[in-house]
Amino acid sequence: MAEPPRRRNIRIVLRYDGSAYFGWQRQPDMPTVQARVEQAVESVTGAATDVHASGRTDAGVHALAQVANFHTDTRLAPPDLQRALNANLPADIAVCQAEDVAEEFHARFSARRKTYFYQLHVGRLRDPFRVRHSLALPTTPDLDRMRQAARQLIGRHDFRSFATAGHLKEDTVRELHALRVVRVRGGLRVFATANGFLQHMVRTLVGGLVRVGSGRDEPERMAEILRACDRKEAPPALPAHGLFLWRVDY
Amino acid sequence: MAEPPRRRNIRIVLRYDGSAYFGWQRQPDMPTVQARVEQAVESVTGAATDVHASGRTDAGVHALAQVANFHTDTRLAPPDLQRALNANLPADIAVCQAEDVAEEFHARFSARRKTYFYQLHVGRLRDPFRVRHSLALPTTPDLDRMRQAARQLIGRHDFRSFATAGHLKEDTVRELHALRVVRVRGGLRVFATANGFLQHMVRTLVGGLVRVGSGRDEPERMAEILRACDRKEAPPALPAHGLFLWRVDY
Repeated sequence: MAEPPRRRNIRIVLRYDGSAYFGWQRQPDMPTVQARVEQAVESVTGAATDVHASGRTDAGVHALAQVANFHTDTRLAPPDLQRALNANLPADIAVCQAEDVAEEFHARFSARRKTYFYQLHVGRLRDPFRVRHSLALPTTPDLDRMRQAARQLIGRHDFRSFATAGHLKEDTVRELHALRVVRVRGGLRVFATANGFLQHMVRTLVGGLVRVGSGRDEPERMAEILRACDRKEAPPALPAHGLFLWRVDY
Repeated sequence: MAEPPRRRNIRIVLRYDGSAYFGWQRQPDMPTVQARVEQAVESVTGAATDVHASGRTDAGVHALAQVANFHTDTRLAPPDLQRALNANLPADIAVCQAEDVAEEFHARFSARRKTYFYQLHVGRLRDPFRVRHSLALPTTPDLDRMRQAARQLIGRHDFRSFATAGHLKEDTVRELHALRVVRVRGGLRVFATANGFLQHMVRTLVGGLVRVGSGRDEPERMAEILRACDRKEAPPALPAHGLFLWRVDY
């Protein structure tokens, strides 16, 4: 009797432009990245399959290296599977890697830390080639002030002030490993690394840093907001289209 | 009796992502850049107005500094006019400059030379963040060979071989001032400067250079195609989405 095919666990790395999607997570009647990837997996393997990502990205958020995994019986070698998935995905989603991993690997539960960056460009004029992927600031913010503010947030804290209301019943303690302000051509990027992020946390943190950088708040304000444990103290979250999931560490 | 308002001639510089448009030129029932800009001018000045560009860009072609002009009676100062136009334009079109110019200035007839570049990136993987604005090459082409081929095309020639058939009854002689192959992060750009371009000429020239760079043709092939004065000798035009109108000189 033939042995039944061994159930494989496939880890994929995804790159996507989130502009056209209502985020990662499957939703009825909405285009989402998860729905597109699951459709591609089904087309290639012939079986409806759940694909788990390291975390949901919100509507309009992009990813340079989102990690996901799924179980399958397909016998395709990883490079062929990758090619076949890409052939079944739209141009704004790409599978950059595919590999067999241990059965225990779970893209979400195995993730140790994640890094996002928020992209800001400086210029009074709307730039049609940046407008989809970064937020325009009218003037260059003071990077030293932003860095001074950022230092106050590093460490293990209750980040409730920087989360959306939906989180209020959950554990809102996270460890923020790094919050770096980096100058890039035409603007800046703020990189945030943590063991996990609350919803809208990166966009709210960066919104706070931008206020400090533009002189509207003092650097010490960030520590005050953090201590308050009250969402009403924090500035509004910046828009989604400047945010990129950059890497996930396991 | 009050003097009638003096008719002004306004020169604007436009930047646009051409992805969503059927080119510059107004067409019935099609979204075009010209139609959008003329709508904005009408909204701001209250008068239906023709806006003339330095030249038509084809469907899907982008511009970093398209030049255009229009006549108007508005009394808005140029910076206010610019702001008002931008407020009436979609995010993928921006007016970067506006100024009063002499009555004789005509964006098309006064243009002395134009420069386009074609953007190529190198990588086997589709990149969702480049796919709208550059063409992917699977391997790095040989830049020395491309430059050798490019040199054969410089000067005043009949470029009929590199134009679409529609041009065949026109004067197809143009002066190509420069054709430069420049390495950029992730790929290369080919800059072409001429006193004017035939339709699809840049995309066909660059298509020829890419064949030489990848070893499919010898550098001398470009001179042969040029001499043949026959469209059938040239390779197909590259797709529109890698092409940018970069500057117009007057």
